[in-house]
Amino acid sequence: MNANSKSVETSRAIIEAVTAKTGYAKSIGIEVGAISPGRVEMFLTRREELTQADGYFHGGVISGLADHATGAAIVSALPDHRFCLTVGLTISYLAPASGERLRVVAEAVRASSSIGIATASIYSETKDGESVLCALATGTMRAIDMAQTKAPKST
Amino acid sequence: MNANSKSVETSRAIIEAVTAKTGYAKSIGIEVGAISPGRVEMFLTRREELTQADGYFHGGVISGLADHATGAAIVSALPDHRFCLTVGLTISYLAPASGERLRVVAEAVRASSSIGIATASIYSETKDGESVLCALATGTMRAIDMAQTKAPKST
Amino acid sequence: MNANSKSVETSRAIIEAVTAKTGYAKSIGIEVGAISPGRVEMFLTRREELTQADGYFHGGVISGLADHATGAAIVSALPDHRFCLTVGLTISYLAPASGERLRVVAEAVRASSSIGIATASIYSETKDGESVLCALATGTMRAIDMAQTKAPKST
Amino acid sequence: MNANSKSVETSRAIIEAVTAKTGYAKSIGIEVGAISPGRVEMFLTRREELTQADGYFHGGVISGLADHATGAAIVSALPDHRFCLTVGLTISYLAPASGERLRVVAEAVRASSSIGIATASIYSETKDGESVLCALATGTMRAIDMAQTKAPKST
Repeated sequence: MNANSKSVETSRAIIEAVTAKTGYAKSIGIEVGAISPGRVEMFLTRREELTQADGYFHGGVISGLADHATGAAIVSALPDHRFCLTVGLTISYLAPASGERLRVVAEAVRASSSIGIATASIYSETKDGESVLCALATGTMRAIDMAQTKAPKST
Repeated sequence: MNANSKSVETSRAIIEAVTAKTGYAKSIGIEVGAISPGRVEMFLTRREELTQADGYFHGGVISGLADHATGAAIVSALPDHRFCLTVGLTISYLAPASGERLRVVAEAVRASSSIGIATASIYSETKDGESVLCALATGTMRAIDMAQTKAPKST
Repeated sequence: MNANSKSVETSRAIIEAVTAKTGYAKSIGIEVGAISPGRVEMFLTRREELTQADGYFHGGVISGLADHATGAAIVSALPDHRFCLTVGLTISYLAPASGERLRVVAEAVRASSSIGIATASIYSETKDGESVLCALATGTMRAIDMAQTKAPKST
Repeated sequence: MNANSKSVETSRAIIEAVTAKTGYAKSIGIEVGAISPGRVEMFLTRREELTQADGYFHGGVISGLADHATGAAIVSALPDHRFCLTVGLTISYLAPASGERLRVVAEAVRASSSIGIATASIYSETKDGESVLCALATGTMRAIDMAQTKAPKST
């Protein structure tokens, strides 16, 4: 993304640590997939605790995954020692998330010294390999120094 | 809200049933507070599973609560036998949700035959009785017949 | 988009008529570019009436162009005799719109019987052929019958 | 809003100058109403150039007015010498804007050193004195130094 984005190794260490060690992401079971500068893929497997009345992934789970993934994409696009906090999120739901797994791909589209913006495409995947785009989101973040947060720096 | 909104008793039966029996709302522990036509209050007590890196409520939990509460407010504003599904959600974060409990107040501002829109104010509350407005959200919903969903109709 | 989307000819007739004959789109000078089912391109040339304090395109002009283009994309994805009205718009600004012309590409990502959602990418273009992505928007629309609007059907 | 917000006199001088002297706000005819720290009221009278196909105010005009007013509210909440630029806008339409005049009331709900957020309620007013809430918007802004913009400082 930027010339001075984090290396993929640094991004992965931070993103996996934040995902594995902090309450919410750990408890819902987010898994980190591919990472490149400004781009992060994550997965979430369906469990009953994540569903709404019809048995699909709950909208609030999808927005939570989008929040986590857009934040990670921006963290990866920012220089070393820079982190971010969510200022706002918008999400549109396109189809029921009736699959066994969610896949989110988040990409930073702005990563300046003060503001980061990333979009996320969320796919509902079945065991048969079908993938349906079920939601689109945009996360707006405020860039801060890593020193201003207790987020774990590495695993 | 409307002349033909659900009665408070009917709204409460549906909203408590959906909250108590469906996976996500039950697992994160949402509690239903006051209900009037087009207006719903809910609470969520902090547990480690709901936190981000700094120990505050995670943004994804706040957006999930806002989704659930705005949907409930619209359900209460719609006629009997009408339910709703989320089309989109927007949320802005105003302050860290560092309290012991979240309180959300959602109010329907549009509830027509096809579309419902509700706003939500989310407060972070401490044991000392302090309350800080930590997020504002807007949920946009599509109105459907109760028959089109498996949502429980009553407790 | 859909099997029963409008033909390109029908879409173009409606979209050009609405753009050329109705107050706002005509007064700011929106021009219609390429059209395919569910996808519409439009242009807007800079004039002083469209600028903010620094001489760039005003954010309100960009959001107005995004509203118009996402509506057109959804109209083109809907069956004959179906039109749409804006329920909500979200937009993120990525870079100053300092070019001589805006180019917007809007694409419908959902076009059901009741709801349409389209995304828009807005580019700021210079005379030298440079193009910068300056904003991303999402429009949410309510599908209605053409008979419910006075929108012109053709030129 | 803040202890160190601009005085009402300073806010009014800046907001009236930006509204009266810059292209877009001047050309559509925005008028400035009441101002207090963090709160700004504006008006816009209907002309054919501002309408959509049915003769109502166009959604793009309403979003443009919301952008301008939320920015002004945040400017008034920030310290002297601080200005702001729009990062994002979300808007929901609640009713047709069929009146003769729009009235917007924007209020800053966050105004820190880096980020400002303001909500706006837009009312459609008739000559008979009827007023209908027709849209709700939220503007997210990045705070900058006045020196970073060419915005006029006073009339």
